[in-house]
Amino acid sequence: MTTVHDTRTLSISRRGLAMPASPIRKLAPLAELARLRGTKVYHLNIGQPDIETPACMLDRLKQIDDKVLEYSPSTGTLAFLESLRQYYAERVGVSVETRQILATTGGSEAILFAFLACANEGDDVLLLEPFYANYRAFTTMAGLNIVPVTSRGRDGFHLPPRSVFEQALTPRTRAVVLCNPNNPTGTVYTRDELEMLAGFCRDHGLFLIADEVYREFVYDGRRAISALELRDGDDFVVVVDSLSKRYSACGIRLGALVTRNPELYDACLRMAQGRLSPPGLAQFIAVGAKDLGDDYTRDVVDEYQRRRDVLYEGLRAIPGVELARPEGAFYCVPKLPVRDAEDFAVWLLTEFEHDGATVMIAPARGFYATDRGRSEIRIAYVLNEDDLRASVELLRVALERYTKGV
Amino acid sequence: MTTVHDTRTLSISRRGLAMPASPIRKLAPLAELARLRGTKVYHLNIGQPDIETPACMLDRLKQIDDKVLEYSPSTGTLAFLESLRQYYAERVGVSVETRQILATTGGSEAILFAFLACANEGDDVLLLEPFYANYRAFTTMAGLNIVPVTSRGRDGFHLPPRSVFEQALTPRTRAVVLCNPNNPTGTVYTRDELEMLAGFCRDHGLFLIADEVYREFVYDGRRAISALELRDGDDFVVVVDSLSKRYSACGIRLGALVTRNPELYDACLRMAQGRLSPPGLAQFIAVGAKDLGDDYTRDVVDEYQRRRDVLYEGLRAIPGVELARPEGAFYCVPKLPVRDAEDFAVWLLTEFEHDGATVMIAPARGFYATDRGRSEIRIAYVLNEDDLRASVELLRVALERYTKGV
Repeated sequence: MTTVHDTRTLSISRRGLAMPASPIRKLAPLAELARLRGTKVYHLNIGQPDIETPACMLDRLKQIDDKVLEYSPSTGTLAFLESLRQYYAERVGVSVETRQILATTGGSEAILFAFLACANEGDDVLLLEPFYANYRAFTTMAGLNIVPVTSRGRDGFHLPPRSVFEQALTPRTRAVVLCNPNNPTGTVYTRDELEMLAGFCRDHGLFLIADEVYREFVYDGRRAISALELRDGDDFVVVVDSLSKRYSACGIRLGALVTRNPELYDACLRMAQGRLSPPGLAQFIAVGAKDLGDDYTRDVVDEYQRRRDVLYEGLRAIPGVELARPEGAFYCVPKLPVRDAEDFAVWLLTEFEHDGATVMIAPARGFYATDRGRSEIRIAYVLNEDDLRASVELLRVALERYTKGV
Repeated sequence: MTTVHDTRTLSISRRGLAMPASPIRKLAPLAELARLRGTKVYHLNIGQPDIETPACMLDRLKQIDDKVLEYSPSTGTLAFLESLRQYYAERVGVSVETRQILATTGGSEAILFAFLACANEGDDVLLLEPFYANYRAFTTMAGLNIVPVTSRGRDGFHLPPRSVFEQALTPRTRAVVLCNPNNPTGTVYTRDELEMLAGFCRDHGLFLIADEVYREFVYDGRRAISALELRDGDDFVVVVDSLSKRYSACGIRLGALVTRNPELYDACLRMAQGRLSPPGLAQFIAVGAKDLGDDYTRDVVDEYQRRRDVLYEGLRAIPGVELARPEGAFYCVPKLPVRDAEDFAVWLLTEFEHDGATVMIAPARGFYATDRGRSEIRIAYVLNEDDLRASVELLRVALERYTKGV
């Protein structure tokens, strides 16, 4: 047998090479070094809530008496789907049927399924920037191009007028992605904004992929409008949901994709069948959330609102820091009086220390597709009030030193 | 503001439309109807093991005392990765470091990551057919073309000679996928076969994606050779692994991708960072598997080997059925004396009954990319011996009636 000599060499795919690294990845070793030097590092960079997972969910771990941990249905268990249906009906005020809900492995899998089902390789998706940095991982995996539409801090990161979306439209645009309430900006969009965006999608045959995983986290009496509430929203709306933040259960990896478009549902279902089933233990304990009253969400939201107040009042008292009052989620994107926030973030971890402590922040550049956001950072306020106060004070002292070149 | 009229209409993506349905999907409602008629349906079509999940894993569910179910590291927890490293060292005889192991959401996610990282949209992958039907879901999601290389029942579904692989090679071939031990055929490949395939990959700059989720399930004193054992296997081998079958824990959705290629690992890690983390509860209980002795695997394998014997002896006593003795996994692909096994499978569920029972089988067509396999079925033997005996007897009676046109 003769073997034809082959000149190809082993190489990973272009998309494998293009996969974006986490925006804070290069900072993490610096934080670790600071910790090893004995410096306390306050983490304003991580979205892992410190709120306890509800006992009515944790208790169910003790109730699992299965002898075999079997596959669940690819859609998710009926019990879990029914608990979600009730949640949408009673808590969100939205009527969906269980056959319109697909349980997913976190909101992450719902995003990937939605991207794959709504657009082909080489198609464009409109993303409001700054955006959740991991969207870029999923657009890369799905072979989609991000066309950014910029929201601006001076507008509280609310939507630009429809004309800006119209200008961003290309022949290959297939979907618009909106995270509401927004990670990273903390913006909660008004009904008018959502109606505008829905009209834009309707007029142009685009899907609206609404990432609503922070739905409950809204402050000052606001309510987050679900895209499932929209008029005409029947066939072009895909909602990405997750239990991670709602019940402070990020580690169980359980979410959902919700759509009233049967073709889209079916395409996602076939992807779900390919991967067999969503996590089973997670679904079993998730059903326990049915026992939570309204007071659970109210208490959690009150807690985050107090933190929001501490952070916001503290930050806007720092000379040169610009920030509109965050409306929801537990993030915000302040603009700092520095030329390059990444340099500042590195400096905080390598050269700064005050009373034995420093603070880790996420430069906002990684949340933009354009070259904007250079002076901005993203802050997650999932620390208790005392730690938040200490973090803000550290930022104040650090900025004073940094801007004076001390 | 004027809105340009847009002629595009809302439509799901080509790849969304192309997503394959499960090969048994259209049979499932027929089985349900049979059940409703009062007919007992023996399921030879499902790969869900009935063996109990080890108590040392289940018991850990009672030990979880976290107050917050937090994200785990994107790579998986150190404890879980270390337990896998030890497993590979002690049970597989393979030395890998924890930085070469990526915990995944089942073997399914490892396959998707491997496909995305090894090849670009439009590239070709060589798949030995018949193949695990869900590979087609992942090639569709990843935009890859399947180039089938056929294995034949008369050869016990062992590999064809290298010349057949050479002929199947295209300029866009990037990887070869081998499931060993094989689902659906039950074939366990010899060291010579693996060396041949490794040589083929090495000479042509191809990745070898080795799906080894049935590694333990080998009979008659065989041993499954891991692709990680191969000479020169350092940079082109990607192993897909899963705890689903090894510990009868399909529902926890926990697996791993293992590669000594740092670039490939890094690309997959960045995908893993995008989806944040693998299931956390699953990782916690999985560590319990460290307490299992060699006797656990031996007992389980003995059980499956007895079932294999019942099935094989029973099937080959049926006139016209062709089947080589299955060597591993818990599947086999017998050829039936029927023109179209799908018609026969439908007939079993709609027209056949014997002593109040019938049997559900998976037509093998869905496991082929060519039009082969029309007379073949896939059987999963995850039933106890009595039920298996009853199922085989039903098949015997049914084939007698069906082939006589009764």
